[in-house]
Amino acid sequence: MTNVGIIGFGTVGGGTARILLENCDLIKKRTGVEVRLKKIADLDIERDRGVTLPSGVLTTDAYEIINDPEIDVVVELVGGFKPAKTFILDALKKGKHVVTANKALLAQEGQEIFAEAQRQNKTVGFEAAVAGGIPIIKVLREGLAANNIVAIYGIINGTSNYILTKMTREGIGFDSALREAQALGYAEANPAFDIEGIDTAHKLTLLSSLAYGIDLSYDKVYKEGITAITPRNIQFARELGYKIKLLAITKSVDSEIELRVHPTMIPESYLISKVDEVLNAVYVIGDAVGETMYYGRGAGDMPTGSAVVSDIIDIARGNHHTLKQYNAGVYKIKDMKDVHSMYYFRFTALDRPGVLSKISGVLGEHNISISAVIQRERREGEAVPLVVLTHKARERDVLDAVMKIDKLPVVADTTKFIRVEGKE
Amino acid sequence: MTNVGIIGFGTVGGGTARILLENCDLIKKRTGVEVRLKKIADLDIERDRGVTLPSGVLTTDAYEIINDPEIDVVVELVGGFKPAKTFILDALKKGKHVVTANKALLAQEGQEIFAEAQRQNKTVGFEAAVAGGIPIIKVLREGLAANNIVAIYGIINGTSNYILTKMTREGIGFDSALREAQALGYAEANPAFDIEGIDTAHKLTLLSSLAYGIDLSYDKVYKEGITAITPRNIQFARELGYKIKLLAITKSVDSEIELRVHPTMIPESYLISKVDEVLNAVYVIGDAVGETMYYGRGAGDMPTGSAVVSDIIDIARGNHHTLKQYNAGVYKIKDMKDVHSMYYFRFTALDRPGVLSKISGVLGEHNISISAVIQRERREGEAVPLVVLTHKARERDVLDAVMKIDKLPVVADTTKFIRVEGKE
Repeated sequence: MTNVGIIGFGTVGGGTARILLENCDLIKKRTGVEVRLKKIADLDIERDRGVTLPSGVLTTDAYEIINDPEIDVVVELVGGFKPAKTFILDALKKGKHVVTANKALLAQEGQEIFAEAQRQNKTVGFEAAVAGGIPIIKVLREGLAANNIVAIYGIINGTSNYILTKMTREGIGFDSALREAQALGYAEANPAFDIEGIDTAHKLTLLSSLAYGIDLSYDKVYKEGITAITPRNIQFARELGYKIKLLAITKSVDSEIELRVHPTMIPESYLISKVDEVLNAVYVIGDAVGETMYYGRGAGDMPTGSAVVSDIIDIARGNHHTLKQYNAGVYKIKDMKDVHSMYYFRFTALDRPGVLSKISGVLGEHNISISAVIQRERREGEAVPLVVLTHKARERDVLDAVMKIDKLPVVADTTKFIRVEGKE
Repeated sequence: MTNVGIIGFGTVGGGTARILLENCDLIKKRTGVEVRLKKIADLDIERDRGVTLPSGVLTTDAYEIINDPEIDVVVELVGGFKPAKTFILDALKKGKHVVTANKALLAQEGQEIFAEAQRQNKTVGFEAAVAGGIPIIKVLREGLAANNIVAIYGIINGTSNYILTKMTREGIGFDSALREAQALGYAEANPAFDIEGIDTAHKLTLLSSLAYGIDLSYDKVYKEGITAITPRNIQFARELGYKIKLLAITKSVDSEIELRVHPTMIPESYLISKVDEVLNAVYVIGDAVGETMYYGRGAGDMPTGSAVVSDIIDIARGNHHTLKQYNAGVYKIKDMKDVHSMYYFRFTALDRPGVLSKISGVLGEHNISISAVIQRERREGEAVPLVVLTHKARERDVLDAVMKIDKLPVVADTTKFIRVEGKE
């Protein structure tokens, strides 16, 4: 019998409780382990969560769980940094295993938590922290354990994906799409975490540490959100056969690890570009297995609860894992300026002869070679968009070239660019 | 240190050996376990497999592995029924864990193998037996362990998927597509296992036993291959917004389990309908997690080797699992005639007034209600195809209706039907 205490009775806490109560017989039959929900702590124990709890389960005091000698697993679903971190550290010190969905905390201050877990020889399960119900942590840690991971591309923020999907399908602007997402409860009143790529970077930090054994390197993740994406970019992308998605990318290149979050153009024919709405997907390339993809709901009470309970079952079964940082200090995180990528540029040029030649001249000087161009019919005297796709180029060269191009007298507005992934 | 012996040095044996040799340092760092390839047995130890083995590894005698007291895990990659089964049973009796990719053997005679494994308290790992490199066994057994499985839909035979993809993209017939698949090595000289749905049914048997805890029920799987699919069906499906895929389906409906393999029309907008060529995907719906999908290569030396080695690592880590048939004898496999599905019909009717009314009359009498019709312009005196999509109907009623319709004087040829999945 494994006794479980949940701290935080919000959305995911409710889902986790429901699964533990409703599916406990199934879990026992299937896995041979008995998991019992013993306590739930929350400051608000009055509100109806639609879950019928046995009496005596609810408490307002998290330490009734942390200090309960009968409880084996403490599930932290409070979120945020404080007091969540204290709860986790105290639970570990009391000899409990911990399961958490708290990506922000683990990505930014996980070093201390995983070190304490190791000292106590306890597990910190975090399947629910990345991509909700998709068992991507287990896949990377166990299913693909035999593989050198070549690259991971993730659509792991449902809010951003919903906004981009709406913009793509309906041609509406970012602000309208955001408002729709907020009205549907897909985006917070303060949506910065989601739309600025911060949440995505938290999850990427965990994936990358797992895939490459590196330290948790949240500070080194390059982050660019989706607020600057316009319907016009999306339209041009479509004409070129691409979709724009907010991707989390980590790759091993030249003995360095790339860690980046940014809007990315992906060929429309790729399976991951069809992952729309609030759905999540993680594309993992291994040296043995080749290309694989994992798809499902990245949020919500029951999907995330499914992941929380799978961690509890693993612990109950004695299948203990920690985040092993076996390459801590070995790999350097690649400076974003040294990253090589393909690029999409949208130049806004005055309608003068020789504009294309001037711009492409600067690109050439910076070793940026063009693979496709869209230039619309010219209207006398008006600024016209000139769209250029490139072969692989270095970010540093791109930034230099753009700076130079934006100073050309024929260029009427700041140049926009979006990185492009796919086969060259 | 975990010592491994491989019996069968073919494609997958070669891939497994390569991974064990090339990635052993990575595996040790990542998982803390040391895995050593001690022996490989094959009747042919001369042919070059492109893998450089340490000397003394190769033997022609499988029993040098089975009887080696140092070997902990025996990997059976011989395939087929005999002598593979004897090797596995003897290895278990000698106290070895077994890893195998042999879906035919496990699906048809696995009862005996898993019983022996249980007696010996040993593991039989079979991640490689279903969907190659995709860790779908681990996902069902552990990642989604908290879920009642609502349904599984799998594209799990690369050969059939390649043939259907070719037919769909190029409008060619089944025979030409099969010949292309054979020329590329995607189909065997005798392709029956793949194109008749037998291989798919083997894999479905394993998935379903895992998902529902039922006995291995290969004999009860309804099997229909892809040989009767024509370019015309594919064309009509497209006009209606569907693609045709060979699906393995298992569902829990009214306390019975559906187990069926047949060509299926799926809405073109569904993610799984975009899984083309030789790629595999398994769509799993859980009561908590909702809809998820797992995608990758279902065959090949390295992808399948990746799955074999993940099983070896699990065993080395002490993460032991057996196929627990916790619902053996509890669930009935639903008779195919009691299955409810939507249907696509292609009637070949003479061009006479009242044909549609006669056919739809018979459908109505059998509780089959129509959701869409395509009727082409009539050409006097010629047989015309009449295409009908239905709402959910019972297979038994469909068979009865078709028998009656085929006797109508206005019907010129046998009626073809394809089952349809998707939201009604």
